[in-house]
Amino acid sequence: MTVPQKLSELRAQMEREGIDAWLVPTDDFHGSEYVGDHFKCREFLTGFTGSAGTALVTGDRAYLWTDGRYFLQAQQQLAGSGIELMKTGVEGVPTIEEYLRENLKAGEVLGFDGRCMPFSKTKNLSRVVGENGGSILACTDDGPLDLIDRFWEDRPPLPCGDVWELDIAYAGKSRAEKLKELRGCMEKEGCSFHIIPSLDDIAWLLNLRGSDILYNPVFLSYLEITQTGAILFAQREAFSGSLAAKLSADGISLRPYEEIYSSARQIPEGSRVLLDPARVNLTLWTSLDHTERVCKSNPTSLMKAVKNPVEMRHMRDAHIKDGVAVCRFIFWLKEQMRRYDPAHPVTELSAAEKLFSFRQEMEHFLGNSFETIAAYGPHGAIIHYSATKETDLALEPKSFLLVDSGGQYLEGTTDITRTIACGPLTEEEKEFYTRTLRGNLNLGAVRFLYGCSGMAFDYLARQPFWEIGVDYNHGTGHGVGFLLNVHEGPNSIGYKIMQDRPLPCVMEEGMVTSNEPGFYLEGRFGVRCENLTLCVKDEKNAYGQFMRLDPLTMVPWELEAVVPGMLNERERKLLDEYHEMVYGAVSPFLNAEEREWLREATRGILPQAAP
Amino acid sequence: MTVPQKLSELRAQMEREGIDAWLVPTDDFHGSEYVGDHFKCREFLTGFTGSAGTALVTGDRAYLWTDGRYFLQAQQQLAGSGIELMKTGVEGVPTIEEYLRENLKAGEVLGFDGRCMPFSKTKNLSRVVGENGGSILACTDDGPLDLIDRFWEDRPPLPCGDVWELDIAYAGKSRAEKLKELRGCMEKEGCSFHIIPSLDDIAWLLNLRGSDILYNPVFLSYLEITQTGAILFAQREAFSGSLAAKLSADGISLRPYEEIYSSARQIPEGSRVLLDPARVNLTLWTSLDHTERVCKSNPTSLMKAVKNPVEMRHMRDAHIKDGVAVCRFIFWLKEQMRRYDPAHPVTELSAAEKLFSFRQEMEHFLGNSFETIAAYGPHGAIIHYSATKETDLALEPKSFLLVDSGGQYLEGTTDITRTIACGPLTEEEKEFYTRTLRGNLNLGAVRFLYGCSGMAFDYLARQPFWEIGVDYNHGTGHGVGFLLNVHEGPNSIGYKIMQDRPLPCVMEEGMVTSNEPGFYLEGRFGVRCENLTLCVKDEKNAYGQFMRLDPLTMVPWELEAVVPGMLNERERKLLDEYHEMVYGAVSPFLNAEEREWLREATRGILPQAAP
Repeated sequence: MTVPQKLSELRAQMEREGIDAWLVPTDDFHGSEYVGDHFKCREFLTGFTGSAGTALVTGDRAYLWTDGRYFLQAQQQLAGSGIELMKTGVEGVPTIEEYLRENLKAGEVLGFDGRCMPFSKTKNLSRVVGENGGSILACTDDGPLDLIDRFWEDRPPLPCGDVWELDIAYAGKSRAEKLKELRGCMEKEGCSFHIIPSLDDIAWLLNLRGSDILYNPVFLSYLEITQTGAILFAQREAFSGSLAAKLSADGISLRPYEEIYSSARQIPEGSRVLLDPARVNLTLWTSLDHTERVCKSNPTSLMKAVKNPVEMRHMRDAHIKDGVAVCRFIFWLKEQMRRYDPAHPVTELSAAEKLFSFRQEMEHFLGNSFETIAAYGPHGAIIHYSATKETDLALEPKSFLLVDSGGQYLEGTTDITRTIACGPLTEEEKEFYTRTLRGNLNLGAVRFLYGCSGMAFDYLARQPFWEIGVDYNHGTGHGVGFLLNVHEGPNSIGYKIMQDRPLPCVMEEGMVTSNEPGFYLEGRFGVRCENLTLCVKDEKNAYGQFMRLDPLTMVPWELEAVVPGMLNERERKLLDEYHEMVYGAVSPFLNAEEREWLREATRGILPQAAP
Repeated sequence: MTVPQKLSELRAQMEREGIDAWLVPTDDFHGSEYVGDHFKCREFLTGFTGSAGTALVTGDRAYLWTDGRYFLQAQQQLAGSGIELMKTGVEGVPTIEEYLRENLKAGEVLGFDGRCMPFSKTKNLSRVVGENGGSILACTDDGPLDLIDRFWEDRPPLPCGDVWELDIAYAGKSRAEKLKELRGCMEKEGCSFHIIPSLDDIAWLLNLRGSDILYNPVFLSYLEITQTGAILFAQREAFSGSLAAKLSADGISLRPYEEIYSSARQIPEGSRVLLDPARVNLTLWTSLDHTERVCKSNPTSLMKAVKNPVEMRHMRDAHIKDGVAVCRFIFWLKEQMRRYDPAHPVTELSAAEKLFSFRQEMEHFLGNSFETIAAYGPHGAIIHYSATKETDLALEPKSFLLVDSGGQYLEGTTDITRTIACGPLTEEEKEFYTRTLRGNLNLGAVRFLYGCSGMAFDYLARQPFWEIGVDYNHGTGHGVGFLLNVHEGPNSIGYKIMQDRPLPCVMEEGMVTSNEPGFYLEGRFGVRCENLTLCVKDEKNAYGQFMRLDPLTMVPWELEAVVPGMLNERERKLLDEYHEMVYGAVSPFLNAEEREWLREATRGILPQAAP
């Protein structure tokens, strides 16, 4: 089917349902970071394959909104489709809401599949459509409203990987204990029901893992909890009989994935239902219209973010293993660059593959935790770069290779960025590497009273940039899961006040957060220095409980890129101490050659005292 | 009347109204920081004169809750009254809510004057009382419920100082312009009514000032605004005929102060009323039960916090004048200590009076902006100390005098703390003075991208303390009004996440915020270094708009207390630059002797380059 044919099929369905404008977002039903093929309605309809974008189809027009990363690609992929590109953020281009305000007429109906739209995103939409005397149709009494499904003939099925149990030796806490704690939260809020639609929360709570979302070891499901039991709405065929029996013994019954909506509608009228409005899709939200919704962050999100002692111990181990793999990779890369052969160069893609193979050698490695960014030279300045066959650069013995990568291990999730000198560097490259490293070192050495959020110390990472009037245009840190999503809340490190977002959370002992300042010079190079950190307790005294961030990541920084004169004495000491720690942790697992290299790569830079 | 007699009168009134427990808070009707005599029901009833405390009277018991500052005083003043002291924060002592949860029975009624209780504080109370099947009575259909007024025979009248107009030469913007801007905010929220109960917001919005609250040049009033007019509920006798006529010309009519409640009840049903739930008392809140309340921060609060160019210019001038007065005071104090005469010592009270007299000599000085803290030696460690005849210490030629004071000028409000060496200091005194000064210097030199709140740089002031595991137990900075309250929101500098409080606000150009780290060693000494700062724009480039905090306060730091070796080079440079600025701004207004002293007090400490 061509795009125009698909549009005309869609318009026929719209007419049948009395819908004047149809919106196609990119989300799955759970707001996942990566979207499975089954959910790629927008790509199917428009031909545009980017990871972000929203289509809008009216009786006689069709539009696609996407952001600056994808302008060129969208232009090419939409050519001849009759779909107009709307460049988000470009002056004069209306937002979807602005477009609807201008163009939707009184009595007209905006439709979309309410399962693909987080409730929180629909508030503005409802207001705009309501102002014009229009209305929204996002599901029907008979069930979901998925117009594209009606003519998408070879639609890929729902992903359905095997669900497996994470042993308590890794999880540290049984699902029974976790459920008990969660029910305590429900009781405190006076709620007899609680619904969780977020896949990583469910996986963590039940000590289960799956493979339905790329890089995220989760499985498609919803969970409905009462004080006495729980229903897991999921694909039955993903569970072995013995696992289903174990869940049943813990009071958790399995029901078909799509029955969550009818089950929600059957909750007794007026029941208090605990629910996170930021995590629930519109259809599920409206299925609870007859109840009293108590809107709070999922208690599970905070429980999950605060790693328990077993998880903490494993996370340290996972990072030593990951450190060994990354150290081997850097050693290998340095060797390749030393024996540089222009006829057989290392490329961005081959470097990423090599790194993957080093990780694969590590015990309990399950896969990458996100798509590896291996970005050479000017590509390093593209923050979300991922190499394709078309863009794959060959490395030369100069400038930086920026590698942002991570692994999933039974012992936890890793995320590390190292910016590696492929050969001689320019003064500018060294200066900005050193500034970035200063930011990482100073933030990593933060010592603070309990009660701070990450907003209280983002400045430490940015000061080396802000003092000269430059910046990096991303957050400084995000939470990281335990053998789960590499991006999770509620902990983060950043300076921006976000209206309509919850307050930044207090940093608790056990939270894992990235520390990743960077600097990007378009067309030239990019630098990022990223460690994961573990928040732990420091001294407690009359002034309160002091806290600090311990580094988890164990891989040396790039001494070839450091200008020692730009570091103050404290920073030099912090660098040497970190390197000593890295050598101690990683060297026992390396061979003699690698160990030799690591010793040199972690050498002290503080002037030695005279003997 | 004795306290027991008053309690029995109160109980008779409670019985008449069917009330089982009567609560007497400390607030006036507007949540003012200082409470006029007319409003001091709690003091009248219990005899306890502290600035914080809440009484609760039941059929057979009476209690007073107050905090650690007042335990001793309350114990003495309550002796023999039959009122039991409840020490807030002491282990095992229930909060008021906990007490009510335990003791109020089903069907019982808790009463209080709803005008004296901010709506936001009553939410918890309502929940607790409701859980027990009790109810709250806070006003009657006939009007307010003020049981104590019924037997308080010589009750002081409402304060009623003359209201006067702040000339546009100082205000910088006419009230018509301000009202227009505010009506724009109302329109944006779709509100046809807006009620402001906060006195400083009203005063700023209307370019009026009064004297009904100690230190705060405001007047008792409420303001009700529509798109076409406004009603100022205030005491008519406080307004001259010509002022009333000017207001009328601007569409503002005067009505009696107490009629706000009936006026609110007459707003057409279902009208959208813009209202700040944190600023409105319970009676006013419930008077709007029939309307649709749109809960937002008062737009006026943000407009007021962002000083306009005329206000900014005047604020700089006010601080130079105030700097002259404080410099003269320090010079005078140093002279007194040099010629120390134990028979005729300077005391805390006489020092504060002397400082007041120096300020009085300045043109357009209208009074202190808060009660002067002049705290010698160990008294400096009591954060909210204010000297009385009983506690008044004589100064000796050693240790610190901590002076936290401020003035109201036609050109604006000042707030400054200097910690002055009265003679030789201990090493410990110097160390902590230097740490405090480092915090002030580093925070004062902050340079940040637009979008930060004060939470993003509080760490700069605390780092010198947190790095050695100590802290000061107060915020680092608060907003300051323009010839208005010395404490105003929404800007502030602090690290603590406050649940149930709005997000910290973005620092905007024109905001005036204090920078006041401190350190307090109980029984020994206290240090605080406080400047006011003005947020201004710095460089704007591709990375965004950079901002900085310019110092407004122009008075030298105490070089006798600085350990130069504890400052790094940047800090020494910052100190010298500030001192150079102070000398330039203040010296032209001093006499030769004073100028000589100032030159020495602002001398450079950076090593001079060899000639």
